[in-house]
Amino acid sequence: MQPIRSMRELVERAVAQGRRRVAVPGAQSESALDAVLEANARGLADAVLFGDRAALEKELAARGVDPGRFDIRHEPDDARAARGAVELVRAGEADILLKGRLSTGELMKAVLDRATGLRAGGLISDVMVTEFVGGGEHRVVAVTDGGVNVAPSLADKRCILLNAVGVFHRLGFERPRVAALCALETVSPAMPHTAEAAELAAAAARGEIEGCEVFGPVALDGALSVEAARTKKIPHPAAGRADVMLCPSIEAGNSLAKAFTWLAGRPVAHVLAGARAPVLIPSRAEAAMDKLCSMALGALVAGGGA
Amino acid sequence: MQPIRSMRELVERAVAQGRRRVAVPGAQSESALDAVLEANARGLADAVLFGDRAALEKELAARGVDPGRFDIRHEPDDARAARGAVELVRAGEADILLKGRLSTGELMKAVLDRATGLRAGGLISDVMVTEFVGGGEHRVVAVTDGGVNVAPSLADKRCILLNAVGVFHRLGFERPRVAALCALETVSPAMPHTAEAAELAAAAARGEIEGCEVFGPVALDGALSVEAARTKKIPHPAAGRADVMLCPSIEAGNSLAKAFTWLAGRPVAHVLAGARAPVLIPSRAEAAMDKLCSMALGALVAGGGA
Repeated sequence: MQPIRSMRELVERAVAQGRRRVAVPGAQSESALDAVLEANARGLADAVLFGDRAALEKELAARGVDPGRFDIRHEPDDARAARGAVELVRAGEADILLKGRLSTGELMKAVLDRATGLRAGGLISDVMVTEFVGGGEHRVVAVTDGGVNVAPSLADKRCILLNAVGVFHRLGFERPRVAALCALETVSPAMPHTAEAAELAAAAARGEIEGCEVFGPVALDGALSVEAARTKKIPHPAAGRADVMLCPSIEAGNSLAKAFTWLAGRPVAHVLAGARAPVLIPSRAEAAMDKLCSMALGALVAGGGA
Repeated sequence: MQPIRSMRELVERAVAQGRRRVAVPGAQSESALDAVLEANARGLADAVLFGDRAALEKELAARGVDPGRFDIRHEPDDARAARGAVELVRAGEADILLKGRLSTGELMKAVLDRATGLRAGGLISDVMVTEFVGGGEHRVVAVTDGGVNVAPSLADKRCILLNAVGVFHRLGFERPRVAALCALETVSPAMPHTAEAAELAAAAARGEIEGCEVFGPVALDGALSVEAARTKKIPHPAAGRADVMLCPSIEAGNSLAKAFTWLAGRPVAHVLAGARAPVLIPSRAEAAMDKLCSMALGALVAGGGA
């Protein structure tokens, strides 16, 4: 399988894979229904909608959609809807969890429940997938973690890295190249993140982190531009060709992830990785294209079947 | 004075202001000479070059420049060159300090010397000035501090903020709008930077931080896009119209600053503010246009004269 080269290919490959099944707690949500209907129309996914049946049927009819196209489970209580949707995923009857109108906290409570949730042993982290266009290149890259883990420890960073690498394997990247981002290229005692970046790169070089290449510490230019990496004399063969940018804090990851939308105008997709199934958190502020890309990303990460 | 609206206007205004005087320790540096020669040719600045006289004259001649156009001070020792250049600025005989081939550490040692340096009471911080193009807008914005202060305290952030505000006053912005950037818009106990952002905004609202508007915590979209700020219901009148983006860490600031170059392809300028005179640190990886913009920024921040 070739690595995908654009967000368009992301959607095409997800469609080609066949329909996946999405469980949506609190489905009376404009954002969630936008995503579900578009993904359904494209042949990407079927949905099981948890919520108030009458309200949902009315909402679907108002959008000109036959409510009979969806499996609706009457569950007006948000917490119970979350548990029901998670249970469906645990039972293998749904492949993806998509947040509806309930809060992210309510959803994650059900996901993280030790007895009945979707824990898989590691951390859950946000992986943002987008396109980098520059220096004659047009390719798919990821930024992590700008959404979940605030101030990750070295062990946390390793989990976050592995989650993103797992996502990229599903996108056809055999050995994703990971840049451990910092503000510069040398280890400085005044900047603890530089030492942790160097340690992650060393662990990968020792074979303790598998399935990827890791380089760092490196700043954004040395991560993305082969020319900048050459000027800065970064010796690693993957320098300037990062697929995944591992950020040292939520603030760094969040700004960089949003820069792809607001400075570069690129489409973006988000998935929470590290649970037993991909979790999608749509946002009202997202463009329709971004919602579709996230559904496609979720479907490819879920994989299996078909 | 109107606020500048583009990097082109930044250069034009600096040229219109008349020549400033730049002191360059360790001037046998390709980056520094590039900047000096271009600024000199544009009528922006004259230079006093500290270094090995014979080597400098040879270098200038090789570039087809009459060495007689510059005031060359023979000082082959880098540390002494740094002290000499700083002394010239202290004496009011130069307006701007431009790093040559010596290390940033060597230069800053001379700048920060309590007896003979250029301390002005507060922190020294990096202010990156660039353009934001999006949502039908084309305007000048700044990112701070992606270069000097690693993990600023609340008091440090206040100094960094005031340094950037001072720079923007020199660019014609009467009351710059400052976004205290974080990963989200609410104060969360799990994210100490959100509480500090809220405190900076509150201090400005109480009139304790003067000469600017401050809002936050806010993520990049709510800082730069009026539409996103509206969707996210951020109540501050400056939301979505940030001139200055105050970042919570060097890693966040560095990636965001570099995103303007590498994701958005915009010209950028850097100045160290907070000393008695602007300090410029040119980098080999910078484009020629960026070097010129930094010289213009330094000249406008130096102000005075003419």
